[in-house]
Amino acid sequence: MQIYFFGNGKAEGSKEQKALLGGKGANLAEMTLLGLPVPPGFTITTEVCTHFYKNKAEFPKGLEKEVYDALSKMEKIVDCQFESSKNPLLVSVRSGARASMPGMMDTILNLGLNESTLQGLIIQSGDEKFSYDAYRRFIQMYSDVVLGVSPHYFETLLDEVKRKAGVTSDNQLSAPDLKNLVSSFKQIVKKETGQPFPEDVKEQLWGAIGAVFKSWMSSRAVSYRRIHKIPEDWGTAVSIQAMVFGNMGEDCATGVAFTRDPSTGEKKFFGEYLQNAQGEDVVAGIRTPCPINKESANGSSLPTLEAQFPKTYLELVEVYKKLEKHFTDMQDIEFTIQKGKLYLLQTRTGKRTASAAVRIAVDMVKEGLINSDVAITRVAPEQLEQLLHPRLDPKAPKTVMAKGLPASPGAASGEVVFSSEESEALKKIGKKSILVRHETSPEDIVGMDASEGILTALGGMTSHAAVVARGMGKPCVAGCGSVSIDYKSQVFKVAQYTVKRGDVITIDGASGEVILGHVPTVNSQLDQYFSELMKWVDETRVLGIRANAETPNDVKVARGFGAEGVGLCRTEHMFFEENRLISVREMILADTRSQREAALAKIYPMQKEDFIAIFREMKGYPVTVRLLDPPLHEFLPKTEEEISHVARLLNTSKEALTAKVRSLHEFNPMLGHRGCRVGISYSEIYAMQVRAIMEAAAELVNREDFKIEPEIMVPFIGTVEEFKILKNEIKEVCEAVLKKQPIKLTYRIGTMIEIPRAALVANKIATEADFFSFGTNDLTQMTLGLSRDDSGSFLPRYIERGIFSVDPFVSLDQEGVGELLKIGCERGRNGNPNLKIGICGEHGGDTSTIEFCHRLKFNYVSCSPFRVPVARLAAAQATLKNKK
Amino acid sequence: MQIYFFGNGKAEGSKEQKALLGGKGANLAEMTLLGLPVPPGFTITTEVCTHFYKNKAEFPKGLEKEVYDALSKMEKIVDCQFESSKNPLLVSVRSGARASMPGMMDTILNLGLNESTLQGLIIQSGDEKFSYDAYRRFIQMYSDVVLGVSPHYFETLLDEVKRKAGVTSDNQLSAPDLKNLVSSFKQIVKKETGQPFPEDVKEQLWGAIGAVFKSWMSSRAVSYRRIHKIPEDWGTAVSIQAMVFGNMGEDCATGVAFTRDPSTGEKKFFGEYLQNAQGEDVVAGIRTPCPINKESANGSSLPTLEAQFPKTYLELVEVYKKLEKHFTDMQDIEFTIQKGKLYLLQTRTGKRTASAAVRIAVDMVKEGLINSDVAITRVAPEQLEQLLHPRLDPKAPKTVMAKGLPASPGAASGEVVFSSEESEALKKIGKKSILVRHETSPEDIVGMDASEGILTALGGMTSHAAVVARGMGKPCVAGCGSVSIDYKSQVFKVAQYTVKRGDVITIDGASGEVILGHVPTVNSQLDQYFSELMKWVDETRVLGIRANAETPNDVKVARGFGAEGVGLCRTEHMFFEENRLISVREMILADTRSQREAALAKIYPMQKEDFIAIFREMKGYPVTVRLLDPPLHEFLPKTEEEISHVARLLNTSKEALTAKVRSLHEFNPMLGHRGCRVGISYSEIYAMQVRAIMEAAAELVNREDFKIEPEIMVPFIGTVEEFKILKNEIKEVCEAVLKKQPIKLTYRIGTMIEIPRAALVANKIATEADFFSFGTNDLTQMTLGLSRDDSGSFLPRYIERGIFSVDPFVSLDQEGVGELLKIGCERGRNGNPNLKIGICGEHGGDTSTIEFCHRLKFNYVSCSPFRVPVARLAAAQATLKNKK
Repeated sequence: MQIYFFGNGKAEGSKEQKALLGGKGANLAEMTLLGLPVPPGFTITTEVCTHFYKNKAEFPKGLEKEVYDALSKMEKIVDCQFESSKNPLLVSVRSGARASMPGMMDTILNLGLNESTLQGLIIQSGDEKFSYDAYRRFIQMYSDVVLGVSPHYFETLLDEVKRKAGVTSDNQLSAPDLKNLVSSFKQIVKKETGQPFPEDVKEQLWGAIGAVFKSWMSSRAVSYRRIHKIPEDWGTAVSIQAMVFGNMGEDCATGVAFTRDPSTGEKKFFGEYLQNAQGEDVVAGIRTPCPINKESANGSSLPTLEAQFPKTYLELVEVYKKLEKHFTDMQDIEFTIQKGKLYLLQTRTGKRTASAAVRIAVDMVKEGLINSDVAITRVAPEQLEQLLHPRLDPKAPKTVMAKGLPASPGAASGEVVFSSEESEALKKIGKKSILVRHETSPEDIVGMDASEGILTALGGMTSHAAVVARGMGKPCVAGCGSVSIDYKSQVFKVAQYTVKRGDVITIDGASGEVILGHVPTVNSQLDQYFSELMKWVDETRVLGIRANAETPNDVKVARGFGAEGVGLCRTEHMFFEENRLISVREMILADTRSQREAALAKIYPMQKEDFIAIFREMKGYPVTVRLLDPPLHEFLPKTEEEISHVARLLNTSKEALTAKVRSLHEFNPMLGHRGCRVGISYSEIYAMQVRAIMEAAAELVNREDFKIEPEIMVPFIGTVEEFKILKNEIKEVCEAVLKKQPIKLTYRIGTMIEIPRAALVANKIATEADFFSFGTNDLTQMTLGLSRDDSGSFLPRYIERGIFSVDPFVSLDQEGVGELLKIGCERGRNGNPNLKIGICGEHGGDTSTIEFCHRLKFNYVSCSPFRVPVARLAAAQATLKNKK
Repeated sequence: MQIYFFGNGKAEGSKEQKALLGGKGANLAEMTLLGLPVPPGFTITTEVCTHFYKNKAEFPKGLEKEVYDALSKMEKIVDCQFESSKNPLLVSVRSGARASMPGMMDTILNLGLNESTLQGLIIQSGDEKFSYDAYRRFIQMYSDVVLGVSPHYFETLLDEVKRKAGVTSDNQLSAPDLKNLVSSFKQIVKKETGQPFPEDVKEQLWGAIGAVFKSWMSSRAVSYRRIHKIPEDWGTAVSIQAMVFGNMGEDCATGVAFTRDPSTGEKKFFGEYLQNAQGEDVVAGIRTPCPINKESANGSSLPTLEAQFPKTYLELVEVYKKLEKHFTDMQDIEFTIQKGKLYLLQTRTGKRTASAAVRIAVDMVKEGLINSDVAITRVAPEQLEQLLHPRLDPKAPKTVMAKGLPASPGAASGEVVFSSEESEALKKIGKKSILVRHETSPEDIVGMDASEGILTALGGMTSHAAVVARGMGKPCVAGCGSVSIDYKSQVFKVAQYTVKRGDVITIDGASGEVILGHVPTVNSQLDQYFSELMKWVDETRVLGIRANAETPNDVKVARGFGAEGVGLCRTEHMFFEENRLISVREMILADTRSQREAALAKIYPMQKEDFIAIFREMKGYPVTVRLLDPPLHEFLPKTEEEISHVARLLNTSKEALTAKVRSLHEFNPMLGHRGCRVGISYSEIYAMQVRAIMEAAAELVNREDFKIEPEIMVPFIGTVEEFKILKNEIKEVCEAVLKKQPIKLTYRIGTMIEIPRAALVANKIATEADFFSFGTNDLTQMTLGLSRDDSGSFLPRYIERGIFSVDPFVSLDQEGVGELLKIGCERGRNGNPNLKIGICGEHGGDTSTIEFCHRLKFNYVSCSPFRVPVARLAAAQATLKNKK
């Protein structure tokens, strides 16, 4: 069976057959079965599309007969004939894939018109103007889609005719004008293709079917599929349906309606329509549509469908109720009223905002339409983040100067500054700033924290600026290449704008927009619907969710968003704070262990206070503290000027400092003297950190009597031998602290798995470790041989060419890096069945990675604070999906 | 059974029990069984040692009784008694592990002496001087080994006594002198330990046994085991044996003999002896030993054992023949003559030079002593390389200024130069030079080639200098940290020496020595023994052996050493040649594809000639050509001066060139825009190279009618998608060439597996690839997260602390990186059962890696030309070892 008929209350297909009939075809069949007024028609299956591509654009045998048989059935139902010059049947030819790909593929309306059938249409409609308009619309669409004639020719001519006729809108043209247009349009086709426009309506039909199939492989469709991960072999179906017209006069109309408000989720019938118009006119936006009812009017005084077509409106209300109840989800409905009679042309699941999605899901559970499991699957995790950050007031006007990467969501305005110092200075006097840099480095942390948002000219979605901003929950637009910064004259130029230091700009980290001046923002509020949904989410999910956070504020935010612990507390960020950096540098420059210990002793009380503050915010939950990770040279000054300055502060010579900087230089610092290697070279550093962690925990337990579970994490382990050495040293410090303070305090010692070797020998490491946390950022870099900081020159092109289907730093490369996670997990649990396993790379907040971790039975994922609700939802969805 | 007795022609152990009795104990038993004159004794097993370490240095139950029972047996055989003041039994207590660890553990002689038994010894020997000398030797040894008194005290006193007595040698001291010494020695012990020297001979015995066990864990023994990969849990045995004395008078002697010449392998009895001396005197080198016979005399006129002890000598000849025949290997024998009677104290497999090893093995096959399989196992592959390079004349005097890493074997002398240009200049005027640099870079290739050898102050065994030098077969001493180079004043300082440009130095790449002035070298010759052995080797091995080579000369050398193809021909080395580099730079600076193609067109004919020359040398064998691998910035100038110079040559501005250099800069070039990523970004580069390869092959096949199999290798593949894209492009070029020239030419397209991900997804890549070559250098860097160039700051310490048992860049990390080789192999063969698999990292010449590759059923290993014979031998040994 290559085609599925629907009409007159009967249908061969149903909504379950989306794979075969596409979303559109399946739902047309379903609506017909529901007894709704759907013009009859039939759907050519996606299997025919697959055959078409496998056989050099040939249609399969028998298709022709099936099509003509179905046409005959349609003719009987609507009582008119294809090719008839008296009472012609006109059809629409529409694409429809399994997944919605709005606007990506082609549609042809009014097919079946030629000079002869036109006369029939004129007779039947009694309206010459309408008929010629239908014909010129058909020629225009068909020529574009099937014959490949640029639409530009037709539009130019149409504009010229309108200008000559002195009218502004298409429907003001007279029948003779339109008649002339038809003939001019045909001349254009003749000239451009060398062939006359096809008069044979069967030729038209097969041309249209072929063109719809071909549009499946159009470059925009291919790109769309790549972005939305839709498999190429799904193919599209083609639905051919008897035409109905909303533009046959004032008793006609066409419209679109939603069964609930797609912006707020409120339970109200919502939509708009155009009187005497064809569907495409709504989309084209030539005329302003009217609200279908008062609830949709938003206070406007435009006429409503309810008032103008009261009987039809009531019919439509019955239809929408029926559809929503039947599909148990908010529907997006297309309808046409032809001479007072209502027809339904499409129904599909309606797109909605994040807050609407949450509200609709929760409401529907209460209404008994769906259960809470289904509600959980009704909200896209990615959407949720929208709810958490302030966003630009959608009603405010804005001057967009440029668009960069939407690196960290949220919106913010402030004065432009070009250095971290300035943003700190502004903060001190209570002013807001946007930090604008080529790129940021760890030394900018404090300045980033002091600013409202960050704009960088370089770097990608996972650049330092992006990662840190997401961690801080601060808006960031990254890699905005059109911004040209001149630090010296303290301006940046972009397009025709020159922005000076102190000028106010606004950035929208959700869209990547860089906007001139101040744009007001609106705060997102987490309402009771959100709480209700998240309650179900938490009851459902198996994975624990923690946050990557190291400032008390971040930890607090994370806890507020439901984080069940800190999965990654990076201690080096604490080393970069201004008043500590000098002691850190003193330590690095020290020649002896005792000098180093003296410098570390100055840092110790500060680290301890850090941990006290963090532990306090995470009362009762585990906090995984990663010991120092970066190579020491990262803490040293770089430019000559900085070196001079620091040398003066440290009372050493510029030459000595330069020599130290040079001696610590590395060709590939990513693979150099860092992580536990530094800990092994200078055990006093880790000893200081461990003491600070344990003393902080002990003090809190003693003083405030609460539970905390410090988890001490050693970074960059590659061999069990390293881990053994460090574990023993760490344990010694821990036991020494606990000996002084006889309290009950459970602590764990574990490691990051971020070097491929560590995953390969996980069985050995696990016999010594209490927990593993996969550091997938570095693991990705090493497994793929791909430096995050250097991949900008080719990675975008790699993704474009499909070498990577997604950015492997955003979503885990499950085939490659994921294989190491699998190996690491299996071998790790083999070595230690009680091993706790988590992930703390940037991927911890990515939904498909979260599902992957769920399948591998991780104990938890850890992500940036603002991703915590996203991760909770994704984890719940993963549970539901894998239950089936 | 905790002890094994031997004596009087009977023994409880045998030579098969080395694991239990140690090498010494097992062979003492065996010699006893052979009826040879061995003083009776017994061996305490290694299991007792293991027990000792597991039980806090306690001896196991029952040991005491077994020891005393055995002592009684000894007493009966030698007819004297332990503790007897009339006829005392004296014993030696010696360590003996399963593997020979010369000098690593302790020995005590003359045990059983105290004031009372001393009198018995005087009576029995009738020699007071001898007796006191024996006693003072015992106190000295025992105090050092058992009581931990520094030997320094005794030596100082001994020197003082000799000085006072006006003599130079110990044996010139009189009996009263020695008697005084004994009492002074005892006072030292009392003062240093607070306890008198033990008079109880049983206490002496147990103290000695415990001390020998303890010496198993002495730091020098631990280090030795780590270097020689001897497991710690083997433990040592202790052999206790009745003393015989070679120093009881002129009818006494002690000596060491080899059953064949250990230097040349010649079949002759060879050895030396000292009259009236104890064994340790031979080692101490106080007196010059005499040759045992004329064959050992080397033309000297010293007396011989043959002449002085003719009867005993004949006895010894019988013994040596018996022993060699019995052990079927060259033996190293220790003997003592006590009052005219011959005793054997030890026999073991004799150490020998490389050429002796080869000759002995081959001779023994001819003599029917062993078969060729055994002969193959008798030569250590590592030794072989000694044979291939010229070496310093061992007889020439030399002034060693410093010692660096023995990075590439061979010896060379020449004038010191500090730049590649100078070494080229000297070569042009026919002078020899040694290139001295902080470190070398790819730009030094030509200069390195022009010099006789390379000395670097920085870098390890696998630094650029080391790797390239080994590839070229040139001597190199690397990482000689004590050398301080001043490029500006063109001198280097080391120790007390200042060496100017033009001064002659000699380097020994086998020992790492840096020597002042010219030292003559002797050329090694590959004799018929070598050829014979290698014939058996080639008949035995399964693995193919190829070479990493890219100059016609290297390829020729490799072929001469038996390489069966080129496994890695690095094309970038060709890009660095002076006359090409400018075109390469032009290509990099080009803005458009056509400009790049124009620059590449200039390089093309040169590349083609390269391949013609290489293919010609490898006639009939496969040559694997790796397409361009390094990031483009490696070809650009670095210093400001160089940039100015190049900008002038290229007719561009210094600013433009600086900007390009900056834009190509990478933070982690190892993981950056390199390998196939460059090939994908600029497909014209690979297209040029492939065309050069194919045109070269086609031309040779056409013109000279010979067979060649080009294998085109794509570097740095991480995904099958990359490989597909490039394979198609490469194939297109190949087919275009073959279309023009209708010849038969088999070519293959494959990839290096050097990114961990590639090994993990090998099944997919293999479906597209004809061959894999594991690039274990980069694979090690990424799998271990360890940059070779940056690991110098901590890797030596990592090896020292046992975190890595060997340098993972020298011998494959089988547990980690090896696991990826295993995975890559299995999955690769799964994806393509005809997949050819090889290895082309530095590890390809490492013996244990070769065995690993053999076990994984690789098709071949590829190594530097001078390692080819080593690899052939290692491959044959791997076959034999894994057959069992």
